[in-house]
Amino acid sequence: MNETIIKVRAPATSANLGAGFDTLGMALSLYNIVEIKRVLPSGEFISEIMGEGAREITCVKSNLTIQSYLEACKTWGVEEPRGFEIHSYNAIPICRGLGSSASAVVSGVLIAKELNCVKASEGDLLRIMTKIEGHPDNVAPCFLGGMTVGCWDGNDLRHVRLSSLPNDMYVVVAVPDVRVNTSEARKSLPEMVNFKDAVFNLGRAALMAAAWATGKWEMLSWGMDDRLHQQYRAKLFPGGDVIMDRVRSIPGCLGVAISGSGPSVIALSKGKPRKVAETMCRTFSEHGVDSLFFVLEGNAGGAKIEVAQ
Amino acid sequence: MNETIIKVRAPATSANLGAGFDTLGMALSLYNIVEIKRVLPSGEFISEIMGEGAREITCVKSNLTIQSYLEACKTWGVEEPRGFEIHSYNAIPICRGLGSSASAVVSGVLIAKELNCVKASEGDLLRIMTKIEGHPDNVAPCFLGGMTVGCWDGNDLRHVRLSSLPNDMYVVVAVPDVRVNTSEARKSLPEMVNFKDAVFNLGRAALMAAAWATGKWEMLSWGMDDRLHQQYRAKLFPGGDVIMDRVRSIPGCLGVAISGSGPSVIALSKGKPRKVAETMCRTFSEHGVDSLFFVLEGNAGGAKIEVAQ
Repeated sequence: MNETIIKVRAPATSANLGAGFDTLGMALSLYNIVEIKRVLPSGEFISEIMGEGAREITCVKSNLTIQSYLEACKTWGVEEPRGFEIHSYNAIPICRGLGSSASAVVSGVLIAKELNCVKASEGDLLRIMTKIEGHPDNVAPCFLGGMTVGCWDGNDLRHVRLSSLPNDMYVVVAVPDVRVNTSEARKSLPEMVNFKDAVFNLGRAALMAAAWATGKWEMLSWGMDDRLHQQYRAKLFPGGDVIMDRVRSIPGCLGVAISGSGPSVIALSKGKPRKVAETMCRTFSEHGVDSLFFVLEGNAGGAKIEVAQ
Repeated sequence: MNETIIKVRAPATSANLGAGFDTLGMALSLYNIVEIKRVLPSGEFISEIMGEGAREITCVKSNLTIQSYLEACKTWGVEEPRGFEIHSYNAIPICRGLGSSASAVVSGVLIAKELNCVKASEGDLLRIMTKIEGHPDNVAPCFLGGMTVGCWDGNDLRHVRLSSLPNDMYVVVAVPDVRVNTSEARKSLPEMVNFKDAVFNLGRAALMAAAWATGKWEMLSWGMDDRLHQQYRAKLFPGGDVIMDRVRSIPGCLGVAISGSGPSVIALSKGKPRKVAETMCRTFSEHGVDSLFFVLEGNAGGAKIEVAQ
């Protein structure tokens, strides 16, 4: 019996957006798909991965979707969770700051809910997902879609989903062929910061949220400005120190930021997406790194269970 | 000839709201009114003040409305600005963190525009006002009304006006009979802060802006939370260290903060405004300070020229 029982599609995300470290994130129209083909009542798992991560994710222990499934089952007190055969079709590059982990966690938790017929509210699901993944700015947009503001205190989450980007706005993402380890990237940040820089960022983060909520897109360049994290992260990959200035100066570019903890770079642009993408890839190339790019939608939806039991 | 030529009404404001230091501010339905009775072509000024500040503002030099008028005229290149007789009716307590300075500056700039027939956009006016007053989170809500997010880089301003509070929400402000000097209050703040605290505040400030923009009022308690400034300011006036906790625990209270740099305290409450006000005033009283309170509207309008030339 090889029919698909559950199919989940969960988007890439760009977190730490501009001033919004650990807070602002948006869904990108680039998806990982997982299909549950067979339930294995013995509690075993069979995993097949195509695309991104196929070589790395070789066992159940390194499969974050399965681990998140088990974690969610544990949270809900599901005794002896059923195993399954899972096929993953991964389009989201891994370790590139595009939320591939969040996509896996969100899928795993949704599968756990579906397969065990658990009744859980959107808030409950989001709380469990964030507890497993750790970053509200990846998990919330991955689950809900669009742009989200999320605050996590370690146990509880408050979030607001904001409106989507208009159709004439392009999201350009360049992905260099180098990896940045998220926990290494975190270590690059200082323990103490200047009070003025803290105030700078809180102002810009609030402005970004307000601009996004009210459609005042001309404010994005200020909202994407940051003094707390990007200056450190930009040093962790070749070209990081020049790429943002170059992209920012392209007419029509409304804002540019390091995606997640890098090394991908994301720009929001009114027209001229090719010029933005070319500039990004040429900069990486000049620094000896190959890269690929995506021109994506600014109104990507959240995770979706496409075939239910 | 004692007819009123220009009459300006400019509201009180509550700045530094919760996490939104130097950024988030709201207009309060408590107004100063100034009336220009006679134009004095000689460039002289005659000033009469009733209400708050009547004893302090005794000369043209200490009259911030007149000084702001002159400053705006200078900015616009108005040669030999006309003087006038000005009557001020002040309801906003001074040096209490309720934006009496912003009210004076906004009025002065609006009079300069009217009296000299200057054509200036809303953005131009706001920029001049902020340059004179220094705080976008007082000036923007005073001029525009409602809740605003404002970022000021010393030369330029970006702002978003958010929606007003619903009618069943009360704004309660308690004003103790002590003064906090704004520049002294600024000195109480540290030069360096913990990275985690900076991230805490930027998240909460963004959440507050998003909550306000989308009407998710249940998020306000998180948005009003802060780790950057209120802990220091609360020590500058009697009762400051306990009043916020007490008010926060009243059922229906959605958030409480020090207004501006204090010592006034502002609470947003769904019902029970009397209980909130009583708790505030009793706390001040226990600490040996008299206080008065206001229950105000959450949708106060901005500055208004009520009688034009």
